[in-house]
Amino acid sequence: MVRTKELNVSTRGRGLYPITSEVQRAVAESGVTAGLCNVFVHHTSASVILCENADPVVQRDLDAFLSRLVKDGDPLFRHDAEGPDDMAAHVRTVLTQNSLNVPVRDGRCDLGTWQGIFVYEHRTSSHRRRVTVSIVGE
Amino acid sequence: MVRTKELNVSTRGRGLYPITSEVQRAVAESGVTAGLCNVFVHHTSASVILCENADPVVQRDLDAFLSRLVKDGDPLFRHDAEGPDDMAAHVRTVLTQNSLNVPVRDGRCDLGTWQGIFVYEHRTSSHRRRVTVSIVGE
Amino acid sequence: MVRTKELNVSTRGRGLYPITSEVQRAVAESGVTAGLCNVFVHHTSASVILCENADPVVQRDLDAFLSRLVKDGDPLFRHDAEGPDDMAAHVRTVLTQNSLNVPVRDGRCDLGTWQGIFVYEHRTSSHRRRVTVSIVGE
Repeated sequence: MVRTKELNVSTRGRGLYPITSEVQRAVAESGVTAGLCNVFVHHTSASVILCENADPVVQRDLDAFLSRLVKDGDPLFRHDAEGPDDMAAHVRTVLTQNSLNVPVRDGRCDLGTWQGIFVYEHRTSSHRRRVTVSIVGE
Repeated sequence: MVRTKELNVSTRGRGLYPITSEVQRAVAESGVTAGLCNVFVHHTSASVILCENADPVVQRDLDAFLSRLVKDGDPLFRHDAEGPDDMAAHVRTVLTQNSLNVPVRDGRCDLGTWQGIFVYEHRTSSHRRRVTVSIVGE
Repeated sequence: MVRTKELNVSTRGRGLYPITSEVQRAVAESGVTAGLCNVFVHHTSASVILCENADPVVQRDLDAFLSRLVKDGDPLFRHDAEGPDDMAAHVRTVLTQNSLNVPVRDGRCDLGTWQGIFVYEHRTSSHRRRVTVSIVGE
C-alpha cells in the first residue's frame, strides 16, 4: 500500500519550521500501520531534517554553525543569480538532505523522544515549499 | 511485506560501531528477497552511516575530521545542557544522517565490497542507542 | 511491487554526472505508478545527490566548496593507501550521501523543477560506479 500527501510550507526566511504534527496526521490518515514514511522537499535550497525538538536554542545553534561554515557571498561562489544566499543555500541542502525516512509503527512515525521533523529553509527570504509525504507499508 | 527488527547498540563514547552482521541477520530473518532495507536511529546525537569497512584508520580519520570541523565547546554554541559535546553531537548528526537505505537483493543487503553499516556515536560518554531495521519488499 | 535496475556510470574524475534520464527510464520500465524510488551507489568514495540542474556553475561551486572543506592530502589523514584524494573521498561521501529517495507519482520521479539526480565522483581519477535503482510501490 502506498499513500501520499502533499504539504505546502510557507517559510519566512532562513531557519527550521516544524512539520512533525502534519506528517503524523498524514501517516494516521493513510491507514498504514507498519512500514516507512518518506518526507521529501521538491527544492534545491531547502532540506528536511530531524532535529532536537525541545530546546529552540539547538535550532539557533545549528543555523549559526551552518552560517559560519557556508558563508553567504563567499568569494569562492560564482553562482549568485538570486543573491549572496543563493549558492550557500544549494551547498547547505547538499550537506543536509532533501528527504528523510522514518519507520512507521502502530500507525505513527516511530520518532525518538527528542526527534522532530523540520523543513529547513536555507534562503534568507520567504518561500513556499512543496513537501511530499509518502507512506509505504501495510 | 514489511518486517522490522529492533537493535539495541551499546556505545562506549564517540566513534563508529559496526552493525552490518546484525542488519544482515534481520534481513535474512525477514524472508524478504527483494526490496529496501532502512536502518534508523531514534536519537538526535547519533547517526547511521556507510563507511569503508576494511581499514580502521578510515574510521579514525573520519572522526578526527569531524572533531576538527565541529568543535566540542565551540563558543558559538549556547546549548550545552549536557556538556561541551552536546550541541556538537546534534550538528554532527545533521551533517551525517539518521537513517540509511540499502537495496535488498537475493535476501541480503546488497552492499558494495567495502561498505559497512555503522552506528556513529557522537557523544563522548556511553549510551544505549535504539535502532530499527525495516525491510520492505517481496 | 519491487523492481530494480542496475546502472553502470563511468566517471572521469571528480565531479557530478547526471543520471536523471536513466533513473526516469528505470521508473517508467518498472510499471510502478506510485511509490518510492531509491538510487543507491555501492561505493564509499562516490555519492548520489540532488542538485540544481540548470546552471553548471552550481556544480562547479559545490565542488569548489567541498574541495576547500575536505582537503586532499590533509595532514590529519593517515589513510592514504590510494593517494591524497583517498580519505578525502570517504569524508566527502559521508558528508553527502550514498543513496536518495524520491517519490514516484504518475509513473515518474516527482522531482522539483530544478532538481537533477547526479552521481558525485569524489576520486580524482576515472572509475566505474555501480548504481542500483529500486522502485517500490504499486
